[in-house]
Amino acid sequence: MHLYTQSASPNGQRVSIFLKEKGLELPMTEIDLRAGENLSEEYRAKNPFGRVPVLELDDGSYLSESQAICRYMEGMHPDPNFFGTTDEEQAFIEMWSRRVELNIMIPVAQAFRNITGFFKDREKVVPEWGEVAAEAAQTAVSIVNDHLANNEYLTGNRYTIADMTLAITLNFAKNVGQDLLSAEHIARWHAEVVARPAFS
Amino acid sequence: MHLYTQSASPNGQRVSIFLKEKGLELPMTEIDLRAGENLSEEYRAKNPFGRVPVLELDDGSYLSESQAICRYMEGMHPDPNFFGTTDEEQAFIEMWSRRVELNIMIPVAQAFRNITGFFKDREKVVPEWGEVAAEAAQTAVSIVNDHLANNEYLTGNRYTIADMTLAITLNFAKNVGQDLLSAEHIARWHAEVVARPAFS
Repeated sequence: MHLYTQSASPNGQRVSIFLKEKGLELPMTEIDLRAGENLSEEYRAKNPFGRVPVLELDDGSYLSESQAICRYMEGMHPDPNFFGTTDEEQAFIEMWSRRVELNIMIPVAQAFRNITGFFKDREKVVPEWGEVAAEAAQTAVSIVNDHLANNEYLTGNRYTIADMTLAITLNFAKNVGQDLLSAEHIARWHAEVVARPAFS
Repeated sequence: MHLYTQSASPNGQRVSIFLKEKGLELPMTEIDLRAGENLSEEYRAKNPFGRVPVLELDDGSYLSESQAICRYMEGMHPDPNFFGTTDEEQAFIEMWSRRVELNIMIPVAQAFRNITGFFKDREKVVPEWGEVAAEAAQTAVSIVNDHLANNEYLTGNRYTIADMTLAITLNFAKNVGQDLLSAEHIARWHAEVVARPAFS
């Protein structure tokens, strides 16, 4: 297997932190997003949508989407478990993963791209939408904060892939000027998660 | 189990078509999105994010996110299989599901909401972003069209949850004035999928 990624990007981090939590290492190639290397014909042959990361499997096929890559690695290396064991546990972990992605991760990314214009050489930027997205992320984080008042982790009493995704998203948000870490229970939970060796 | 849903909404349809494909029926309550019933305190106790559908489990817990609900039902009723059997098959089905959701379903929904102002009583509408999103959906559909030139279904030779999500998204898009069905291979694939009894 071989990983094509930009390890500093949020989705790159999702895979690299997941691998660290599993105690795994993969040979990898860094893709330069800023230079548009992900948009080259060569890279699009691996992922026509031009996104990182992509995992090349041993049969030469290319698997993209960080959540699909992590779930595949969990299948290959089941312990420690981060996607759930029973059907019910798996369902609630997926529910929280998706709540984080759809209500926080995507709005944070849209706010970043539309407010800062970081990729304005290759996409149309709508600053007014960036503000709407930033506010949506704030609202969603406050709902999660209420949830964490009564739950150690997103899905209750154990750390899962959903917590990784949220912590990576909030770290990224902070780095690009969106501070979503100040609410009391988010702050307590975040300190606990980023103290893990995989986040160092 | 009990389903709270708006069966005409794209995510409502994802669960109802999935259940039909499985030959299952669940007792259900319709939630009126237009009237904002999903934003009531009573509904938010089931899903604090105020989205449909929500599945109430037999222990009284509430599972939301349509993909999590469908995967849970697949665990309870494994045949016929729509999420894959081997780790590798599951990974590629998840990859395609997410490509469809992130690159087509979300842009179609954002275009709809921001161009038509359908929910302008409860959210800020940015028409310029709606146009950007509509164009992004077009671009993604054209990538999928190329893929379907050499593949009967999204993941190759069999129909899965990813095909359901794409067909429901393209039907919804058409209903709200975004025609994404005209490309040759998309049209061939779409005709095949919507001819299934579950789509009638």
